[in-house]
Amino acid sequence: MPSGPTAPHRVVTLLTDFGTVDGYVAVMKGILVQRAPDTVLVDASHEIAHGDIDGAARALGRYWRHFPPGTVHLVVVDPGVGTRRRGLALEAEGRFVVAPDNGVATDLLAQAGAFTAVSLEHVDAPPGPVSRTFHGRDLFAPAAAHLGSGGSLRDLGPPVTEPVRLDRSMARTEPDGSIVGRVVSADRFGNLLTDVPGRRLDGARAVWIGGREITPAGTYGDVAEGETVALVNSDGAVEIAVRGGSAARTLSVGRDAVVRVSYR
Amino acid sequence: MPSGPTAPHRVVTLLTDFGTVDGYVAVMKGILVQRAPDTVLVDASHEIAHGDIDGAARALGRYWRHFPPGTVHLVVVDPGVGTRRRGLALEAEGRFVVAPDNGVATDLLAQAGAFTAVSLEHVDAPPGPVSRTFHGRDLFAPAAAHLGSGGSLRDLGPPVTEPVRLDRSMARTEPDGSIVGRVVSADRFGNLLTDVPGRRLDGARAVWIGGREITPAGTYGDVAEGETVALVNSDGAVEIAVRGGSAARTLSVGRDAVVRVSYR
Amino acid sequence: MPSGPTAPHRVVTLLTDFGTVDGYVAVMKGILVQRAPDTVLVDASHEIAHGDIDGAARALGRYWRHFPPGTVHLVVVDPGVGTRRRGLALEAEGRFVVAPDNGVATDLLAQAGAFTAVSLEHVDAPPGPVSRTFHGRDLFAPAAAHLGSGGSLRDLGPPVTEPVRLDRSMARTEPDGSIVGRVVSADRFGNLLTDVPGRRLDGARAVWIGGREITPAGTYGDVAEGETVALVNSDGAVEIAVRGGSAARTLSVGRDAVVRVSYR
Repeated sequence: MPSGPTAPHRVVTLLTDFGTVDGYVAVMKGILVQRAPDTVLVDASHEIAHGDIDGAARALGRYWRHFPPGTVHLVVVDPGVGTRRRGLALEAEGRFVVAPDNGVATDLLAQAGAFTAVSLEHVDAPPGPVSRTFHGRDLFAPAAAHLGSGGSLRDLGPPVTEPVRLDRSMARTEPDGSIVGRVVSADRFGNLLTDVPGRRLDGARAVWIGGREITPAGTYGDVAEGETVALVNSDGAVEIAVRGGSAARTLSVGRDAVVRVSYR
Repeated sequence: MPSGPTAPHRVVTLLTDFGTVDGYVAVMKGILVQRAPDTVLVDASHEIAHGDIDGAARALGRYWRHFPPGTVHLVVVDPGVGTRRRGLALEAEGRFVVAPDNGVATDLLAQAGAFTAVSLEHVDAPPGPVSRTFHGRDLFAPAAAHLGSGGSLRDLGPPVTEPVRLDRSMARTEPDGSIVGRVVSADRFGNLLTDVPGRRLDGARAVWIGGREITPAGTYGDVAEGETVALVNSDGAVEIAVRGGSAARTLSVGRDAVVRVSYR
Repeated sequence: MPSGPTAPHRVVTLLTDFGTVDGYVAVMKGILVQRAPDTVLVDASHEIAHGDIDGAARALGRYWRHFPPGTVHLVVVDPGVGTRRRGLALEAEGRFVVAPDNGVATDLLAQAGAFTAVSLEHVDAPPGPVSRTFHGRDLFAPAAAHLGSGGSLRDLGPPVTEPVRLDRSMARTEPDGSIVGRVVSADRFGNLLTDVPGRRLDGARAVWIGGREITPAGTYGDVAEGETVALVNSDGAVEIAVRGGSAARTLSVGRDAVVRVSYR
């Protein structure tokens, strides 16, 4: 990672469902800047749908490894604040995650090799009472600042061996050889991302979704404007898209819709 | 604040109601980067509702003191651009604010001890005519860049002793000992923030709002999913929330709704 | 631009229609941070409407020159991904642009003097197959990182002499001396920006739009709350606005609506 005479800054990314208008995210940024002044803050998103742990896990799974080792990924999508859920910090492939232990690290952990995790029990909270409603301020941002300024994971609490993981569906093969999977999310463009591995599109004759038959293709440009296409997306999975439009709206389907790939 | 051999960067935070799509915020960022290249820009929000001075004041009041001394908080929520309202720069507890003099500093001033303020009359505007519609570009960003690069407050204009302040309601005690306050804002989660101090929840028997009786509790986890709860929030005030839902929607109430805390 | 003993960071600005929730923007930021660790990332916007090349071009045209020389403006509004459209990098007045060659640089090129442009054919893509759906990750962010870390434009591909440009309407003079133009965009506040040069408001008797006659004025404060006004905006063009409201909503007009300035 070093690339010159001076050591590069550590990076802290932020992913929340807070929106920005209330100033809660800015509070967390202030704590990070105050406690870890040499870190660089990078907004991932603050527009995760309220309490959408699944969506946050998929977003984090997409970007975490593109950042350099030493990066701290702070995730505060925390519908369980005020319950007994643990706070979590973990390290995998040199990157850190600080988040509630509610499954937001699921996809990252599935991609990573070994990891080390701790429960956030020894975090240096800001002065004043620890709130029971805003652990982003009182627990997670301080823990991220600790790691971002070079502090060790072990200092933050005792080991955790089994972080919470979400169930992840897997496409299955039917007796007739076809593959049946499901839509795992619709992105902002209305593209339907599935759990069918992209290589399963090789030799496919048709893709069925929402009662419609869709012709497999290489990319958007292989079909006319407004036509539906099944292709391998940038995550390496089968995706249903409409060129210049929204597949979610055109097909009236969303998360959990069944998709079938047939070969004859 | 210094934490190593090199001086830390100064921070400039940005809070506006501009949205981002039109590029106006990027114009301001360009001016800041060009004039104060050693500062670090931190987005607070650009999604403040159009002209919502009250909401901007509350957000700023929440985050300003979490940033280190030397930070410049730039706020451009300016429905009065093109009228005779003054531009303002002030210093309180070592942090700076640059903003229209329309009340956006109300909550910050209420929390701060002493302050020094000036009217923005000697600002070095960009080349070309000063617009009468975009003072973020022609007045406020240049003033923030001046402070962010170490310039003095006094250089920016003559002293102001009475910045504009918004009226702030205060909960009052009724003859029967109950407290009557009001909702001051609903946050993105639909939580209803009130002007009743959190300590007034001690010994309370019930909280009434929108014709409904709500049981006081410690935190979200003390009630079942979907139930309404009154608790002390992270600002130290009474808040009405629905676990896993939106109190604003569940109760159909919003800003200015009356809330009553009774003790018998 | 240098302003002290250390060289300033290079800046990379980001403008996309990706939204942030899916993590695609964070992927691009990770690549930039990893490959060009000394650059500073500045969000312009990620909320450009899906595929709105025209809107992106206008936003970029507004902010590009406010950033210092050396800045890289990365624009990924790319409805043609997966078609044969080229990738483009160009330099004008010391600033760089990296974008699909689809017209997003139209307004910048109209303002700039000379420029140099190349087709992105020699970009060092991330490991793994180059996707046919996410060139922000596989083409544009790597090219921006190359420029941001001081690499040369020429390294990225062969010269392009005619980047794609959007048609831009121009207001015209009628036989009776009046000016007829059109609305080119409505901003977030509902202000209607036109292609009529601001100086044409000098001596104007009336401005007509949507069947309504509007009195020219200097600024918002010259009319009462809720009244419609025609003024010279911060881009130097005629703008129709409603004080404290939305002209787009009040007049029920939008992009392409005809506007007429008459002098007698």
